[in-house]
Amino acid sequence: MEDTQTQRDWLTQDDLNSARARLPMLYVHAIPVRVDDRGTVTHLGVLLRARDGRIDREFVGGRVRYHERIRDALARHIETDLGPTAWPQIPVSPIPMTVAEAFPTPGVSAFHDPRQHLVSLVFLVAMLGDCAPQQDSLDLSWLTPQEAAHPTVLDEMDHGHGVLMRQALAHIGQLG
Amino acid sequence: MEDTQTQRDWLTQDDLNSARARLPMLYVHAIPVRVDDRGTVTHLGVLLRARDGRIDREFVGGRVRYHERIRDALARHIETDLGPTAWPQIPVSPIPMTVAEAFPTPGVSAFHDPRQHLVSLVFLVAMLGDCAPQQDSLDLSWLTPQEAAHPTVLDEMDHGHGVLMRQALAHIGQLG
Amino acid sequence: MEDTQTQRDWLTQDDLNSARARLPMLYVHAIPVRVDDRGTVTHLGVLLRARDGRIDREFVGGRVRYHERIRDALARHIETDLGPTAWPQIPVSPIPMTVAEAFPTPGVSAFHDPRQHLVSLVFLVAMLGDCAPQQDSLDLSWLTPQEAAHPTVLDEMDHGHGVLMRQALAHIGQLG
Amino acid sequence: MEDTQTQRDWLTQDDLNSARARLPMLYVHAIPVRVDDRGTVTHLGVLLRARDGRIDREFVGGRVRYHERIRDALARHIETDLGPTAWPQIPVSPIPMTVAEAFPTPGVSAFHDPRQHLVSLVFLVAMLGDCAPQQDSLDLSWLTPQEAAHPTVLDEMDHGHGVLMRQALAHIGQLG
Repeated sequence: MEDTQTQRDWLTQDDLNSARARLPMLYVHAIPVRVDDRGTVTHLGVLLRARDGRIDREFVGGRVRYHERIRDALARHIETDLGPTAWPQIPVSPIPMTVAEAFPTPGVSAFHDPRQHLVSLVFLVAMLGDCAPQQDSLDLSWLTPQEAAHPTVLDEMDHGHGVLMRQALAHIGQLG
Repeated sequence: MEDTQTQRDWLTQDDLNSARARLPMLYVHAIPVRVDDRGTVTHLGVLLRARDGRIDREFVGGRVRYHERIRDALARHIETDLGPTAWPQIPVSPIPMTVAEAFPTPGVSAFHDPRQHLVSLVFLVAMLGDCAPQQDSLDLSWLTPQEAAHPTVLDEMDHGHGVLMRQALAHIGQLG
Repeated sequence: MEDTQTQRDWLTQDDLNSARARLPMLYVHAIPVRVDDRGTVTHLGVLLRARDGRIDREFVGGRVRYHERIRDALARHIETDLGPTAWPQIPVSPIPMTVAEAFPTPGVSAFHDPRQHLVSLVFLVAMLGDCAPQQDSLDLSWLTPQEAAHPTVLDEMDHGHGVLMRQALAHIGQLG
Repeated sequence: MEDTQTQRDWLTQDDLNSARARLPMLYVHAIPVRVDDRGTVTHLGVLLRARDGRIDREFVGGRVRYHERIRDALARHIETDLGPTAWPQIPVSPIPMTVAEAFPTPGVSAFHDPRQHLVSLVFLVAMLGDCAPQQDSLDLSWLTPQEAAHPTVLDEMDHGHGVLMRQALAHIGQLG
């Protein structure tokens, strides 16, 4: 996926690695949700992703490209991970649910990324269509808020995404 | 409309009038929007309502009843005003776009309501279906953000809803 | 405290009880926090309150009176509970951290209040001065985010305020 | 100012120019406000800045450095522009008032920056101390919300900061 990105915004992998050691990288993340007709969240979606020989449980997301709007980056990553029929309801406002900051040094914040200093705008995104994991995304699990709040589920999530899950549950008022 | 409400939550009009003189009344308002597939707001909906012998330009909304959830009150008022096929995307979070406070005394806040002290939770609500004004709602005008930002449009809106329109445009980042 | 309130907004206890059985009651709550010079929350304040012969662990807050602004209700309840030298930084925006809905019927939402249907606008409020519990407030405990996130602390909080604590920790990005 | 920044995060001006042509740059902006004891905004601060031989009217802000937290970047830029005694109340939550996206191509969004694709997290920051413009900041004007909302004031602001001012006034509920 990174290769494709690299070509499109004319960054070689070397350029990207160099930038990652010197600048904060802007990301977006989407927490996929299913809602009932009253907007109540019935399920939250967790992605199983194969990457670098391991399986990660995490949310949808990735880097914002040069000259790409936040909402276009969100739509692109959702389509890449969940396919073209997910019918995501991209939020009308650019104000995120939270801003996640990950640093290469552990302990600076709740998030840690050994590769880079990353700042992600995180949004809850209701999916009205069919989600079909694509490319290196193996599966999408839909969990009820009760299932999602279970400590073993939260602990199994990678890259601090268990914290994002707790924040999402708090945001929707379902963090019992 | 008030009569129907009154019956359902066992408040006589006298009771309601008495409460209005002594307690803040909780309201919800929905600003109906049309969005494109990237979540960009293309149109905002303004209601033409006949009430007490005059025509008001305002947003959808009304009182929250006893034992009614915020999201149920939003859904009920949207269905009352825009019909059963509006397919509103009720927000997943209870955090409103803004909180509007109207007082019977002019000048305390941007909003004024001679009848009562009213506190309204205001939400942007994307409508995916067909909106058909109902009952005392005569028409629904869909305005582009550019049209909506025009001073004459804003000034023509009643009950301080021109302020809500400005806040909505600011919230979606389209207040040029 | 209720008596004093009642007199000031000309509601007898009977009137108030009657309204409580028929209308949603508007409340505000403040989660007191201590911050460092970067705005990082170092401590969250929990009140020990004596009421109706029991001790409750909860946040600061109470009813919004007729013709009272949200920010004035916040300031009044903070002064009543934490004294006149707390120097609260009342938020500049009326948008709350969350909206808590409590119903007399258990299970409708995360909050339950046998006396009434209550809708509370909840704000994080930094206290820059000395907090001295007043009247029926016995003590104020300042907890670090780590202490506050401990299940036994959360479970000991009353009226669902453990949920508010979790939401506050999520909001400030410290829900590990 | 850019030179100093460059040295501290080991970016030469060439590196920075190169990154600016290939990656979105992360910024923070602070809208300085004065508040009364109820949190009501009484004044908003606009900076007069000398840069590249012209005078700009804009808000406080600048680039986020590698391995710098959002709240540290905010504090640093406020101290650089307003001096060490401004006593800013850095927000407790990382959720910004708005996210401003500026593109080198005019018309993509409400903001335009010929030098770069910039994404800024914008915060309202109450200043409790004395603000003394520093370095290339010539003066700080404190405007009442009414003065700030005047079209000539808004039009005179540079880099689209008139839009930010409108969003700030909407956010605090004072956009009449």
